[in-house]
Amino acid sequence: MTSNRMYLNAFDMNCAGHQSPGLWTHKDDQSSTYKDISYWTHLAQVLEKGRFDAIFLADVLGTYDVYQNSRDAAVKQGVQVPVNDPAFVVPIMAQVTKHLGFGLTVSTSFEHPYVFARRMSTLDHLTKGRIGWNIVTSYLNSAALNIGLDQQISHDERYEIADEYLDVTYKLWEQSWEDDAVVLDKEKGLFTDPSKVHDINHEGKYFKVPGAHLCEPSPQRTPVIFQAGASTRGRKFAAKHAELVFISVPTKEAGKVLVNKIREAVRAEGRDPSEVKILSLVTPIIGETAEDARAKYEDYQNHASYEGALALFGGWSGIDFSEYKANQPIEYVKNDAIQSIVETFTNIDSTKNWTVDDIAKFVGVGGMGQVAVGTAQSVADQLEGWKEETGVDGFNVAYAVTPGTFEEFVEHVIPILQDRGLVRREYEEGTFRKNLFGYDHLPAHHYGKKFSKLTVTK
Amino acid sequence: MTSNRMYLNAFDMNCAGHQSPGLWTHKDDQSSTYKDISYWTHLAQVLEKGRFDAIFLADVLGTYDVYQNSRDAAVKQGVQVPVNDPAFVVPIMAQVTKHLGFGLTVSTSFEHPYVFARRMSTLDHLTKGRIGWNIVTSYLNSAALNIGLDQQISHDERYEIADEYLDVTYKLWEQSWEDDAVVLDKEKGLFTDPSKVHDINHEGKYFKVPGAHLCEPSPQRTPVIFQAGASTRGRKFAAKHAELVFISVPTKEAGKVLVNKIREAVRAEGRDPSEVKILSLVTPIIGETAEDARAKYEDYQNHASYEGALALFGGWSGIDFSEYKANQPIEYVKNDAIQSIVETFTNIDSTKNWTVDDIAKFVGVGGMGQVAVGTAQSVADQLEGWKEETGVDGFNVAYAVTPGTFEEFVEHVIPILQDRGLVRREYEEGTFRKNLFGYDHLPAHHYGKKFSKLTVTK
Repeated sequence: MTSNRMYLNAFDMNCAGHQSPGLWTHKDDQSSTYKDISYWTHLAQVLEKGRFDAIFLADVLGTYDVYQNSRDAAVKQGVQVPVNDPAFVVPIMAQVTKHLGFGLTVSTSFEHPYVFARRMSTLDHLTKGRIGWNIVTSYLNSAALNIGLDQQISHDERYEIADEYLDVTYKLWEQSWEDDAVVLDKEKGLFTDPSKVHDINHEGKYFKVPGAHLCEPSPQRTPVIFQAGASTRGRKFAAKHAELVFISVPTKEAGKVLVNKIREAVRAEGRDPSEVKILSLVTPIIGETAEDARAKYEDYQNHASYEGALALFGGWSGIDFSEYKANQPIEYVKNDAIQSIVETFTNIDSTKNWTVDDIAKFVGVGGMGQVAVGTAQSVADQLEGWKEETGVDGFNVAYAVTPGTFEEFVEHVIPILQDRGLVRREYEEGTFRKNLFGYDHLPAHHYGKKFSKLTVTK
Repeated sequence: MTSNRMYLNAFDMNCAGHQSPGLWTHKDDQSSTYKDISYWTHLAQVLEKGRFDAIFLADVLGTYDVYQNSRDAAVKQGVQVPVNDPAFVVPIMAQVTKHLGFGLTVSTSFEHPYVFARRMSTLDHLTKGRIGWNIVTSYLNSAALNIGLDQQISHDERYEIADEYLDVTYKLWEQSWEDDAVVLDKEKGLFTDPSKVHDINHEGKYFKVPGAHLCEPSPQRTPVIFQAGASTRGRKFAAKHAELVFISVPTKEAGKVLVNKIREAVRAEGRDPSEVKILSLVTPIIGETAEDARAKYEDYQNHASYEGALALFGGWSGIDFSEYKANQPIEYVKNDAIQSIVETFTNIDSTKNWTVDDIAKFVGVGGMGQVAVGTAQSVADQLEGWKEETGVDGFNVAYAVTPGTFEEFVEHVIPILQDRGLVRREYEEGTFRKNLFGYDHLPAHHYGKKFSKLTVTK
């Protein structure tokens, strides 16, 4: 593959209404069949046909209840609720594919790293090394309350906990079992050489894990690390750990600024800024003609839900837009948080005096990411242009309707990207990390790999 | 099916060396391929062909480190270590079967019930209602240490916690979402009726869960409840919650006593004693002739591991047999715990002065359960006799070598059991619970179902 390669993830979630709230009402949308094995096997096969690098599965463990100070809007519109555990659809998709990677979102706030590390090793074994971990620290207050906390832990402390959580998992994955610990010598009757299985003796501020990992080394050991932190603290965390960073920006200008900040943070951690791959959210809307595509976008917008979009946006921004008038420009609101939102949307289209209604309409199809509307040729052009102008390495492709958006993208846009040498025609053999970077394990200079070199005592 | 039906589970674990330590060295054993999708798809297909009710997946989250005060023997012999998470092989097996149930072991000690409840609902959705939950409170001290506890919580308090844990999950599964909450009305734009989604407002001694369940109602709501508690407190817990109880006894006499105790405990909880199905552990060893079968058993015993068996037995009993001589009758040991073990083994064969070596040999093939050695006809006779004389409802069939033991059982023994009207020739349609008991949900008189009737306020 040329260095010009365009990395592609599909972006989905084990629920309906992921990034396009209300679109479940569209006749072409099957997102409400998320509970069926067949939805996932079909999707995985479509994506592998399209030579996607991975499917990236989002997750939340709470409901969006900022808008109207209630979860009702989200519940009514099926906005990321009901939501099932994404981890179980990974083995289902692995069973019908050979190369597709899996980026699984799991929060560091809900389960113990000793237990979690076994889950990921199990998935890495079953998928033959195709698992990635999208690390989140969880932003929904409703989720924190339900695991018995009085309120969400502060943003920065969540990252402190996450940093130690990562240390524990690196020790379990990288340090505990040596490569040749499992011998399987039937003659000698030796399954595993106990001198090559090490206790990690972790004792930190938040976790105490004295023992050894429960799993033998999996093909990648540490899963490919995804991260999406956009805050300063989140970027620092990503710069230290992440191999793949996901951003969600509505304009090229915002994309460019954020890409530069991320690469700068990666450099500050002593890593090659280009070694972290940055993927930007896009929802492609493809028509046979430009007019056709435009009409399709309008049709989707007409199916988008006003209250669903504001429920979603409320969860992300913390702002309850039900307190403001729908059809008046939001500039009239005197509130610091809203001012930054005014700025964001003015950057999207400065000819418009954005109203709450406009914001809902914009968010309603494709969330806060880019929407690429046009013929297949034009969508390919837009992606290539976006990549060149912002410096991203590729895209997280979200659906407006599923699996239709993915099917259309694979059928019409992928062949063009392949003709341009941006997307492979055939997968190479090997693990997910090998497919992305050419090596199976974390590289020697990665923070997490350092744990494998420590002198360990059993 | 006649009331004479023989319930059958297969018993396996996401590791090698489940109940027959050391047998991984046998040329016919493939248990070390537990990491491969193909091991599980093949096994599931064999079991469904044999009209098994379910596959029951055991689990531990620690290592067996009582013997020699070290985990080394278990590690060397691959005795339930390395051990992967069993939950992820369920969707894999569900994908290639239509009727087989899945009994998944998950401890109440390692994850929060709010998060766990979503996992089980997700699996119940994906399997179309074929999930069961084997509730354990975890007996290995090594597991407790690794989630940061200074020592294992006491046996009885673990059951107190488990009781409240169950309350939380019943509320999430049975009470939170009404049957018709999810509307999916594309015209009206109503995904879910928010007035039919209820907060559970749980506030107990160990858990605080104010919110609603994250998942829409799954086919069974509460998974089929398995339990294996043999202690008095464990039996009380099982009598209150369990629909299926698993026992592991080496003699009919011990089986009969335990079955009566369990049925008595069920009656004491106000339930019909026969409504709980009791399955007993058996390892079938099938030959073309009786001599052939006997030779096979001896061959297996020769592959069993002395230290592996004592590692396993040490974890179960808490006794470190490395402190005692291998070839002297254990009667010489003056220790209360050992005396009860002497009694157990004397009951198995009173003509023998049991030594540590004999115990290791016995445990080495089939753990502490029954071993049924003989022709297919004889094994069928033994199972039928065991069922009649002890009052069990069926068996948990473990392997000596896998998948060979299961393949032989399905090929040779199942047709005989079918001819006798003990095992179905065809599955009925429907959920796992329906297949077992004729209904999809917990019955109205079950403790867990009572939560669905409470007046709830949103």
